[in-house]
Amino acid sequence: MDEIEFQYLFNPRNICVIGASNRPNKVGAQVLTNLISCKFQNDIFPINPKHEKIFGLKAYANLKKISNYLDLAIITVPNFKVPAVLEECIEQNVKFAVIITAGFGEMIGYDPNGFKLRDNILNLLRKGDTRIIGPNCMGIACTESNLVGLMGFGFPPARHKINASIVSQSGTWGITTMRAGTIHGLGFSKFVSSGNEIDLRFEDYLEYFGTDPDTQIILGFIEGLRQGRKFIELAKKIEKPIIFIKGGKTKSGREAAKSHTGSLAGSQELYDAIFKQHGVIEVNNMAELVDTGRAFAQCLSYDPPKFPRGKRIGLSSGGGGFCVLLADHIEAEGLIMAQLDASTIEKLNKLLPPYWPHRNPVDLVASWQIGSYTKVIKILLDDPNIDAVITRPPIGFSLIYDNNNVQEFARENPFSAIGVSLEMMKDIDLGIVRGIGRMAQKSSKPIIIPLGFYTAEGPKQYEIIREFLTRGVLVAPSGQAAARILIKLYDYYKYQQRIKNEKP
Amino acid sequence: MDEIEFQYLFNPRNICVIGASNRPNKVGAQVLTNLISCKFQNDIFPINPKHEKIFGLKAYANLKKISNYLDLAIITVPNFKVPAVLEECIEQNVKFAVIITAGFGEMIGYDPNGFKLRDNILNLLRKGDTRIIGPNCMGIACTESNLVGLMGFGFPPARHKINASIVSQSGTWGITTMRAGTIHGLGFSKFVSSGNEIDLRFEDYLEYFGTDPDTQIILGFIEGLRQGRKFIELAKKIEKPIIFIKGGKTKSGREAAKSHTGSLAGSQELYDAIFKQHGVIEVNNMAELVDTGRAFAQCLSYDPPKFPRGKRIGLSSGGGGFCVLLADHIEAEGLIMAQLDASTIEKLNKLLPPYWPHRNPVDLVASWQIGSYTKVIKILLDDPNIDAVITRPPIGFSLIYDNNNVQEFARENPFSAIGVSLEMMKDIDLGIVRGIGRMAQKSSKPIIIPLGFYTAEGPKQYEIIREFLTRGVLVAPSGQAAARILIKLYDYYKYQQRIKNEKP
Repeated sequence: MDEIEFQYLFNPRNICVIGASNRPNKVGAQVLTNLISCKFQNDIFPINPKHEKIFGLKAYANLKKISNYLDLAIITVPNFKVPAVLEECIEQNVKFAVIITAGFGEMIGYDPNGFKLRDNILNLLRKGDTRIIGPNCMGIACTESNLVGLMGFGFPPARHKINASIVSQSGTWGITTMRAGTIHGLGFSKFVSSGNEIDLRFEDYLEYFGTDPDTQIILGFIEGLRQGRKFIELAKKIEKPIIFIKGGKTKSGREAAKSHTGSLAGSQELYDAIFKQHGVIEVNNMAELVDTGRAFAQCLSYDPPKFPRGKRIGLSSGGGGFCVLLADHIEAEGLIMAQLDASTIEKLNKLLPPYWPHRNPVDLVASWQIGSYTKVIKILLDDPNIDAVITRPPIGFSLIYDNNNVQEFARENPFSAIGVSLEMMKDIDLGIVRGIGRMAQKSSKPIIIPLGFYTAEGPKQYEIIREFLTRGVLVAPSGQAAARILIKLYDYYKYQQRIKNEKP
Repeated sequence: MDEIEFQYLFNPRNICVIGASNRPNKVGAQVLTNLISCKFQNDIFPINPKHEKIFGLKAYANLKKISNYLDLAIITVPNFKVPAVLEECIEQNVKFAVIITAGFGEMIGYDPNGFKLRDNILNLLRKGDTRIIGPNCMGIACTESNLVGLMGFGFPPARHKINASIVSQSGTWGITTMRAGTIHGLGFSKFVSSGNEIDLRFEDYLEYFGTDPDTQIILGFIEGLRQGRKFIELAKKIEKPIIFIKGGKTKSGREAAKSHTGSLAGSQELYDAIFKQHGVIEVNNMAELVDTGRAFAQCLSYDPPKFPRGKRIGLSSGGGGFCVLLADHIEAEGLIMAQLDASTIEKLNKLLPPYWPHRNPVDLVASWQIGSYTKVIKILLDDPNIDAVITRPPIGFSLIYDNNNVQEFARENPFSAIGVSLEMMKDIDLGIVRGIGRMAQKSSKPIIIPLGFYTAEGPKQYEIIREFLTRGVLVAPSGQAAARILIKLYDYYKYQQRIKNEKP
């Protein structure tokens, strides 16, 4: 089989929306308006014989009247009409057809008609070169070409210096991940919802993302793979971080997967072994995926990439309880509490009050000034026994104010601790971010900050997260998450080193 | 020893702030202004010989000139001055002294002077009836008396129909938990930061919360217990949900704990065994504590309490990938995927398109209307094979708009899927909340909703969470969290049943 020209899928010279509609709640309208409003760079051709114009664009009755070359068709017509429009795509040599429509036998045992339609499509495929994405998928996206060819509520995904691409066997899951990632500071290159994989499969997209120069990180949701051998080869070959969620890890999950895309979920032990042997990073939920992906993006944004080169962690925090919990998480996640070097203890003796704990974790006790706080971090980063630092700064007090009740309270009680500190707290937060940012830039070791906890204090928290991210500082929603991310970064680094050494 | 009159600690007739200060950044000012601004109901006496008035209140040079009975003194003077003011407290028969000041030997090995001061205090204690909280603690709080006797940024904790009380061996951790809980819909009765536990100990507060009629749930952070036998007796005796985080579960954590409050963390196996045998609920991080506490509060708000009476879970969701992951979480957390009753399948056949999966989880496929959605939930709740329902509703699309970029995008692209749907989505969200709320009220089985993921979409998410909570619907930040909460609710129910049966 010829090489798949994926550049025409993600950077097409034109897109036909077959089944384009004027009615906003129709999928054909969603796809079209998503393409228009997210500013796809090239031609968009709505296909619908009943209209002359749709959302301001000239509509076409069929594909024949449009252009000599057609790169991409997105199909949203009802399932029984799909074979006919696909036949037209093949006749017109359309390179790729994304079939969003469902109803092709994916509900095993309850849809004999869908099975027949599926066979029709498979027969058609043999007649030409058109390649199919889906059916029963949510579509594709690409931030280089401003292509948001998705059903549902399309919104431009974020694009940063380092970008991830998503291949997902669950469309809803994939789109939700991309939206959450965009909110949480992760950049994206490409997205594909692979659907029933009647033609192109998970492994094909994975292969492309592995070579695509615009993809630095690969994220995915797997229910069941159809080409195990190819997957193993790819996992072996691709040197980019591959971070997957595997659905169907339990018997209950596998049974649910069977009645979903009709894929075979396969033996979980096999997946575990393949992932482990070939450096595939597995996470357990969406939040972990986004947080981990973002941390990899941060590490990769440095040249050379700034991964932890060992498992020895230096900790600093204010609040003994947090120190204890952080130390627990370090050990529980397989990291090591660094033994402070004698030179570090000497430096900290000069900086901290005499009763500081003289060991790792460094409880900052009474020395809660910004200046000494960042100095402690610098001292830890300079310690030859430390590979990475987790630090819980006295940050985020300005976040307390991101709540109507608190603001009202501060206004009504200007003399209270909360009342007197409103403006001051913002300055303190910014001062800490800048101080840690400077340390991060200068050091070859990563710093990660456990910042608040899930849904903690709203949009202001994103501001602080963004400030850290723009300065190359890693963030995590909790101490546990920080430890979990660091061990994954280290494992990836170690795996890459091993691979390099094994190469001739 | 006489019974401890805790009512005078949490509902004192007056509070002396020893070391009260006019300077806002001083702890003595924080405590005083927290008491004033949070509207403590009874007398507050600032003690400071250098001032006539502090924050508008008449100041006193010492305790002698104030009143015949003094219930509570909060001490914020430097450590070397503490023995003298404590002696005064004892002479004046103050019932309780909260010593916030640190520096009493808690940093083992590096503070010989602190150890001496500690011995001074212990000697003084024998001379009178004054009981000590701390030293080296963050203070106490009580929502019945509007008492916020805390250092730092005091803010009134939330108070609901069902309230939790916190006893914490880490002050910062405890206060952060109370603030996070307040934001996330958990109500509180009392809070105590137990500090070095020179006199009153974790077990004493636990004992009181066990009998306190205003405390329905007990939350705590343990580093190390000093009265193991008493703890076991209390765990056995108290029938309220007790939810703890245990710091020092690993060797690294235990070593960090040693240099913190100077407590002995003890064997983790022993704690695990005690917790398990006596129905103490253990969680691993703050988010889990708040979420679990809130779920218990929701269950207890019904009469009789609405706990799951079995482990068989009915699932419904839109999006096959989410169904697979939910099924995985169910099994991984020790719950059981319910087998749908024949009557349920019959009812769903009438409601859903023919290709619905005919099994649990119920993937709602194309039937995404609010009406059929809530009908599916009702059908699942009525199934005799189902003990609780996890459902991931098509909710929260209005949350997408809680982002400046999205709002701008919607305004600039009024024809896009996002643009046309702004107002509609709010109605849909509210419709779903109301529909599920009605089901929850009528059923004897709990419903729990995995809603977004951590820090997902900001303040609007709290609005939806609050709407669910006021209707007695449980919420969780993810499918995994939902499953983890349900098994804890069930384990508690089962434990209580066992205890009841064992009683003569």
